[in-house]
Amino acid sequence: MSIISYVNGSYVDHKDAKVNIEDRGYQFADGVYEVFAVINKQIVDYDGHINRLFRSLNEISLNSPIVKEAYIFHIRNLIRKNNIHDGLIYLQVSRGVAQRDFKFPTKIKPSLVITAKSISMENYYSKFKQGIKVKITDDLRWKRVDIKTLNLLPPVLAKQKAVENGCEEAWMIDSDGYITEGSSSNAWILIRDKLITTPATNSILKGITRTSLIRALKRKNIKLIEKRFNKKDIKNANEAFITSATQFVMPVIKVDGYKIGNGKVGKYAHMFKDAYMEAIQLK
Amino acid sequence: MSIISYVNGSYVDHKDAKVNIEDRGYQFADGVYEVFAVINKQIVDYDGHINRLFRSLNEISLNSPIVKEAYIFHIRNLIRKNNIHDGLIYLQVSRGVAQRDFKFPTKIKPSLVITAKSISMENYYSKFKQGIKVKITDDLRWKRVDIKTLNLLPPVLAKQKAVENGCEEAWMIDSDGYITEGSSSNAWILIRDKLITTPATNSILKGITRTSLIRALKRKNIKLIEKRFNKKDIKNANEAFITSATQFVMPVIKVDGYKIGNGKVGKYAHMFKDAYMEAIQLK
Repeated sequence: MSIISYVNGSYVDHKDAKVNIEDRGYQFADGVYEVFAVINKQIVDYDGHINRLFRSLNEISLNSPIVKEAYIFHIRNLIRKNNIHDGLIYLQVSRGVAQRDFKFPTKIKPSLVITAKSISMENYYSKFKQGIKVKITDDLRWKRVDIKTLNLLPPVLAKQKAVENGCEEAWMIDSDGYITEGSSSNAWILIRDKLITTPATNSILKGITRTSLIRALKRKNIKLIEKRFNKKDIKNANEAFITSATQFVMPVIKVDGYKIGNGKVGKYAHMFKDAYMEAIQLK
Repeated sequence: MSIISYVNGSYVDHKDAKVNIEDRGYQFADGVYEVFAVINKQIVDYDGHINRLFRSLNEISLNSPIVKEAYIFHIRNLIRKNNIHDGLIYLQVSRGVAQRDFKFPTKIKPSLVITAKSISMENYYSKFKQGIKVKITDDLRWKRVDIKTLNLLPPVLAKQKAVENGCEEAWMIDSDGYITEGSSSNAWILIRDKLITTPATNSILKGITRTSLIRALKRKNIKLIEKRFNKKDIKNANEAFITSATQFVMPVIKVDGYKIGNGKVGKYAHMFKDAYMEAIQLK
């Protein structure tokens, strides 16, 4: 079966899903995006993601090419057309096609592309049981990473460095020695029974999964401290994990080769994953 | 006459010049680029630009999709096919098409696209006589702007802010209060007979036009100081200008509304522009 993607108003065979080479997403990374998880044919935390998309659009003065209410219609169409039970939806808005010039062009329509792919929840659960290894890399990114833009080469290079060091994720460290976040996830550590995650300033992307987990943990009366943490704090941690729309809650068992706790997935990771899965909003 | 562009091995009508939406240039800004000026059907400072392209590729561990010697062949073909007398060549290499994942895909071929457009040298000379106005904006970019990557949203936003303030270029200022460079140009000021430009560290892109001008000025025994400069230095300047492959040498007559010298194009600007035009290498 062919994969069907959405490109500027049309549903097309993915191999024909193309944009002009002067689309500003291609030449300037002039655009923003969102990734939605799909579980049991339903969209996870839709409202959080779509609201963040509109915040990102607003922050870079980009108009949505379609009305806000129409996004869910196209996403659901792609879920149906691609027969997705569990999966991921990728959605990107760029400033459209215009002769190359740094300043915003006038009178062009922004581009919207959406793709869908299946994922296996079994793979997620078996990866969860293993946990992942993390490599610490320098945070080289720009000063507005709170906006979910296409300027992703710095996290791409961070992730690649992690992979080349036998790890699954990079945790980026700022010039003060504090972890900001993962290359495509938020970072958390647990010291005794206190859960710590970096506060949502301009230095991190405020993850929708992060927000949902915080909401879930409040119901369970888990003590959460939103503060910066450094390598020394990581060495004191008994558990660690990441959150993202594609990884949900994923335990971290090693950071830079150093074992977290006993180097195995801990009991809080299970508790947090279960709390998150209970609290997600399906639409 | 249609415009002809080069896309991954083919010369195509520009309106059909397309790439897949999963090209990593489109989703991750995972690529690098160069812009070459064309004067009198010849490429300006070709060797400098092509060597910088290969440095950029190397810095992000990206292989060239074609041998280095083949680039000039395709560029000259586009100059001929588009009947360009004076113009600009835009050339971009991205990591190619693969299912979306931050880490580098294996076994994919990088994408190469090249476009050409005509410019009017008369327009350049008449703009030179007027000079341009500059707006100072915060430098929000990542820490490796010495690599000419597609992660251009920060300079796009800077340029747009300049335009909205009635200016033609933005000069970006770092957190120490020093000008790094323009959004798509290098920045220069002249205090009495001393020419000052920001040194080529990781904080600026080492412009090919900048390098050519420095070479030209050495022949004329102009005193050049490569050091950082701030707003106070700008107020002490009697002349200022920018350099880039598309603007060559362009005088700056106002910065943040403050007149440079008497607010008119000065004699050094003419001298520098003439020295540059004499020194460019055509190929």
